[in-house]
Amino acid sequence: MERKMEVGILGATGMVGQQFMLQLDRHPWFDVTWLGASQRSEGRRYAEAAPWRLASPMPDMVRDLVVEAAEPGRAPRLVFSALDAGVAGEIEAAFAAAGHIVVSNARNYRMDPVVPLLIPEINPDHLSLLDAQPAARGWSGRIVTNPNCSTVVLAMVLAPLRRFGIRRVMVSTMQAVSGAGYPGVASLDILGNVIPFIDGEEEKIERETQKILGAARQGAIAPHEMVVSAQTTRVPVANGHTEMVSIGFETRPSEADLREALASFTGVPQQLGLPSAPAQPIVYLPERNRPQPGLDVQRGAGMTISVGRLRPCPIFDYKLVALGHNTVRGAAGAAVLNAELMRAEGRLA
Amino acid sequence: MERKMEVGILGATGMVGQQFMLQLDRHPWFDVTWLGASQRSEGRRYAEAAPWRLASPMPDMVRDLVVEAAEPGRAPRLVFSALDAGVAGEIEAAFAAAGHIVVSNARNYRMDPVVPLLIPEINPDHLSLLDAQPAARGWSGRIVTNPNCSTVVLAMVLAPLRRFGIRRVMVSTMQAVSGAGYPGVASLDILGNVIPFIDGEEEKIERETQKILGAARQGAIAPHEMVVSAQTTRVPVANGHTEMVSIGFETRPSEADLREALASFTGVPQQLGLPSAPAQPIVYLPERNRPQPGLDVQRGAGMTISVGRLRPCPIFDYKLVALGHNTVRGAAGAAVLNAELMRAEGRLA
Amino acid sequence: MERKMEVGILGATGMVGQQFMLQLDRHPWFDVTWLGASQRSEGRRYAEAAPWRLASPMPDMVRDLVVEAAEPGRAPRLVFSALDAGVAGEIEAAFAAAGHIVVSNARNYRMDPVVPLLIPEINPDHLSLLDAQPAARGWSGRIVTNPNCSTVVLAMVLAPLRRFGIRRVMVSTMQAVSGAGYPGVASLDILGNVIPFIDGEEEKIERETQKILGAARQGAIAPHEMVVSAQTTRVPVANGHTEMVSIGFETRPSEADLREALASFTGVPQQLGLPSAPAQPIVYLPERNRPQPGLDVQRGAGMTISVGRLRPCPIFDYKLVALGHNTVRGAAGAAVLNAELMRAEGRLA
Amino acid sequence: MERKMEVGILGATGMVGQQFMLQLDRHPWFDVTWLGASQRSEGRRYAEAAPWRLASPMPDMVRDLVVEAAEPGRAPRLVFSALDAGVAGEIEAAFAAAGHIVVSNARNYRMDPVVPLLIPEINPDHLSLLDAQPAARGWSGRIVTNPNCSTVVLAMVLAPLRRFGIRRVMVSTMQAVSGAGYPGVASLDILGNVIPFIDGEEEKIERETQKILGAARQGAIAPHEMVVSAQTTRVPVANGHTEMVSIGFETRPSEADLREALASFTGVPQQLGLPSAPAQPIVYLPERNRPQPGLDVQRGAGMTISVGRLRPCPIFDYKLVALGHNTVRGAAGAAVLNAELMRAEGRLA
Repeated sequence: MERKMEVGILGATGMVGQQFMLQLDRHPWFDVTWLGASQRSEGRRYAEAAPWRLASPMPDMVRDLVVEAAEPGRAPRLVFSALDAGVAGEIEAAFAAAGHIVVSNARNYRMDPVVPLLIPEINPDHLSLLDAQPAARGWSGRIVTNPNCSTVVLAMVLAPLRRFGIRRVMVSTMQAVSGAGYPGVASLDILGNVIPFIDGEEEKIERETQKILGAARQGAIAPHEMVVSAQTTRVPVANGHTEMVSIGFETRPSEADLREALASFTGVPQQLGLPSAPAQPIVYLPERNRPQPGLDVQRGAGMTISVGRLRPCPIFDYKLVALGHNTVRGAAGAAVLNAELMRAEGRLA
Repeated sequence: MERKMEVGILGATGMVGQQFMLQLDRHPWFDVTWLGASQRSEGRRYAEAAPWRLASPMPDMVRDLVVEAAEPGRAPRLVFSALDAGVAGEIEAAFAAAGHIVVSNARNYRMDPVVPLLIPEINPDHLSLLDAQPAARGWSGRIVTNPNCSTVVLAMVLAPLRRFGIRRVMVSTMQAVSGAGYPGVASLDILGNVIPFIDGEEEKIERETQKILGAARQGAIAPHEMVVSAQTTRVPVANGHTEMVSIGFETRPSEADLREALASFTGVPQQLGLPSAPAQPIVYLPERNRPQPGLDVQRGAGMTISVGRLRPCPIFDYKLVALGHNTVRGAAGAAVLNAELMRAEGRLA
Repeated sequence: MERKMEVGILGATGMVGQQFMLQLDRHPWFDVTWLGASQRSEGRRYAEAAPWRLASPMPDMVRDLVVEAAEPGRAPRLVFSALDAGVAGEIEAAFAAAGHIVVSNARNYRMDPVVPLLIPEINPDHLSLLDAQPAARGWSGRIVTNPNCSTVVLAMVLAPLRRFGIRRVMVSTMQAVSGAGYPGVASLDILGNVIPFIDGEEEKIERETQKILGAARQGAIAPHEMVVSAQTTRVPVANGHTEMVSIGFETRPSEADLREALASFTGVPQQLGLPSAPAQPIVYLPERNRPQPGLDVQRGAGMTISVGRLRPCPIFDYKLVALGHNTVRGAAGAAVLNAELMRAEGRLA
Repeated sequence: MERKMEVGILGATGMVGQQFMLQLDRHPWFDVTWLGASQRSEGRRYAEAAPWRLASPMPDMVRDLVVEAAEPGRAPRLVFSALDAGVAGEIEAAFAAAGHIVVSNARNYRMDPVVPLLIPEINPDHLSLLDAQPAARGWSGRIVTNPNCSTVVLAMVLAPLRRFGIRRVMVSTMQAVSGAGYPGVASLDILGNVIPFIDGEEEKIERETQKILGAARQGAIAPHEMVVSAQTTRVPVANGHTEMVSIGFETRPSEADLREALASFTGVPQQLGLPSAPAQPIVYLPERNRPQPGLDVQRGAGMTISVGRLRPCPIFDYKLVALGHNTVRGAAGAAVLNAELMRAEGRLA
């Protein structure tokens, strides 16, 4: 195989940055050769700069990389961004202006009309927005984003059901603490407790879902017309967002049709055999008490969404439960899959 | 004050039975003098028969009571039932037939057309059903029930909002492990996990709520016409069921009107000053991240429902979060309040 | 009764400061009238300045107090200190120099030769050190300290056993997250996990215990000669430090003698009936699986140490398990009891 | 490579039985072809009989195996036993009498003078006891056992330190709930709690360790003379027993010597390259807050013991913290490694 492509990581030392290291460890296409982070980490070896918090050990490839300033210049053309939203807006724009391809997990440009909010199984055609970026933003590079971690789970479940005409979606989430980064949620706040509030999360789910499932037309995205209402909570779970979903359709499909649509769902990443693509993007579990984060979150190396409990809803048409790995499919894995799709489509050349 | 009334406890050794002991410890009106339980416990002192699992110590008044068979005869007229549903149907009927007043936490007779499903703040007039029991069931005694633990939280929140015309209610619950009794949920199933299924729970919420908020007319209850859709889960919380609720009204009230209705809610127990009645049946918390089981479950000695996060819903009219103590307001405390109302109304004479 | 004494709280907004509010709510002798905290809180109402994190609601008496700078001057003579060690040294000395009586929970002066490290049931005579403070430190006021939260549990268990000649003590702790303050331990670090390290904790236990159990002679404390070896860990428990202890004696006492010594232990606070003194400073639980934080931490309103599992040790003489409430008996409750003893002995006049 | 050896699993449906399935999935030497369990499971497909509770999915190889009675006869010569102690004694003896090689995780024969209590890195020569079994017990087959899960962690840490002359060992454990099987520990007992008692556990650690580290002489084991004192607790951790250890030596070695002995420890399984042998049986972690079950339990696929915090002890010579995976290195993985050693030594021929 040809030489691997060098990639950089912005925000390399935080929790999502660390997850990127695992996703890119021994990756067949990409090679992490550059790390950028805040001044506090600059000039230090990654092994010293990153307070490693993941159960899998730090990959050897990055231990001795020296963290640089989060500025374009010495970075490779493709950079993944795990930056906090507080700084991502400015830094990512600077990289795009300087000709870098920024594949970002930050929220700042997700709703930008010329930035794809990409899930390769769902809306690979949204990449066409990239062509509008130079004129609209003056970037010689590009920015591509993945959705918020709780949005991904919902969007993945809805994607195969689009054909039945989704009109209304009510979703209640129980989200893992890893979604809040490190140190993130204080133990005194969550041990044996539920926190019924996550700042900005409900709005993200309600708006991002419409854009993701929207149609790309003439260089713009027409948001899907479904109405989404979200309630979000934090629960004492390490990894895995669980979501209770009620869906109203234009015409009520049969339960068997829905189940079949979920179980047979596949997309471009599977057709292309992208390295991070799970064999099955969605698995439907027939047991009545599944999915559970403790048992199902690692399915498909964290890239598969687990669904269960499909049943009629007395108000809308159907209810179900969905689960996804928030730092893999909902963050670092999502971004890596995005970059893999771009490469396969020749957009990293 | 006059002499206390003697009461018995059926199912005295289980988790709900233990909670009854705490609720009745130093009660101004009732005196626990008789305990009935399964054969395994018969003839043993309560202190030996009950595997005490509560954080508050076992009340002295019951330590030396000898557990008897769960049969009428030597039991006092008023008995509380903490029996499991598997045996409650037959035993409670036997007690009612023998002239006992059974104030039950079991589910068996909740949906019986001539048995009140009582929450004293909401439907004290449902006690009028009792007059139909002798003819309909042949009981010289009576049976009164309280709702399922997760139903109580929802019904309490909806009660003050009835005046605005409730049409649709979507509720997602996160329920504490104490609701499953002891040993109940295995630690391997719930540590760091969520179980998205509780057997029969969703049906109970959907049907019981309609009966509780229904109208008593001519010796029968006309269920409320609202449609309820429930999704229920178990989370690693010891005590306190948290519920995310979306409500659609006939005519959309203002947020201020709803808030005022919740905060000012009161009922017959407060007017009569019943011993177990909380000063405020509902407390509205203005903080954006409340209620939380860890901080709010003990409010009003566990008899107050905490509500927060009232806000518009993009699909229905409003969303909110509610919390209640499942073994107090949702079980033993509910039954004791029921008995207090009956006594205040002269129905225990 | 005579008028209450006005008291101030230094470090009023942190976790220990909040616990002080609960300990002093409706206190028969003391009235909180002054709050001092860092610049960030200065000038704000306490209800706004303190991110209240306790399950019991904020006492009304302090809601509207305006937080002032942590400087002597307007503060009452008696101040409790819940300051962090990083600032406590300087501020407490300034208050003592200005004539205030500082009853501190901070570690800074605990090992100072002229500062009592006080547990009123154990070493009330150590208060005699106070007479040496003016000459030795130049303070017109005084400083009294209570031990580290994990030390208190151990020292309380050892106190009644001193008569048998303690020579060696091995202790392993499992400490609650509330001991680390707020936000303190990150949830990602402790959910389903154990952290086998607490900075400086083992040294504190090893040295403080010797001073507490030491003898006051001629204005100084001769440390007890026992050797203590400690291993400390953090576990996913909210409140309550559990400690596994092995003890070697000069002459091996009988198990019955030890049990009797523990169960009958009492001290000056009980004799004087100090308001915060538990009826029993130590309770011995005969059940083989006790004490447990979930069941026993609230005993004696958090001021009682629970002990169980006394049994022979194959290496030393005996092993046992002890449990105490770390923010009550191990912090705020300890300091309030110290102040009560001082008042009863006329040292606050 | 030659044909795989067929193996059976006794007690196949329980938690340890399930862990055996994972350990033997795609094993290069062994092929699971027979399952034995209690009458309740007899005649059912494994996929239906076993309430699968592990995060890794059930291996396909065993899904369709039909569970048979736990009786010799149709079982292959080599059977692993995951039986409960209540039935293991009789059943394992019946299999041994019938000519089977029983590699057992049950406690029943661990202290039998002619049964090896085997950890292949530590005492491979104890296999010589097998030669005494026919005469002593009348078995044409054999029984080999692995230690209790908490004993393994301690014995592994002590093994490399034997050369310095171990005299006294004090150990305090914090054990995971998976060690108690399923349903095992009730969630109400362990959520946010510590249980300071595990029935029989302390005695097992104290006696088994002496046998494991003892010397095989003339067909018998002379127990090691060290004295062990254990305190055991259950904590809210899913997998991984953490142990705090203090060790007294005949002559105090240097800290560097101890660290070197731990880090360089290796044994027969590593020399022979046994399939389940970890590259490093012990890893020493230099970070001051390690090992932690949440971060380190999976090291070496669960077969490596993680050690940290080696430091002087004020009473004995040194203290340290050790961690091991209780259902892998402490149960199923231990038994599989035992069988691998037996095969490599020609004892399964």
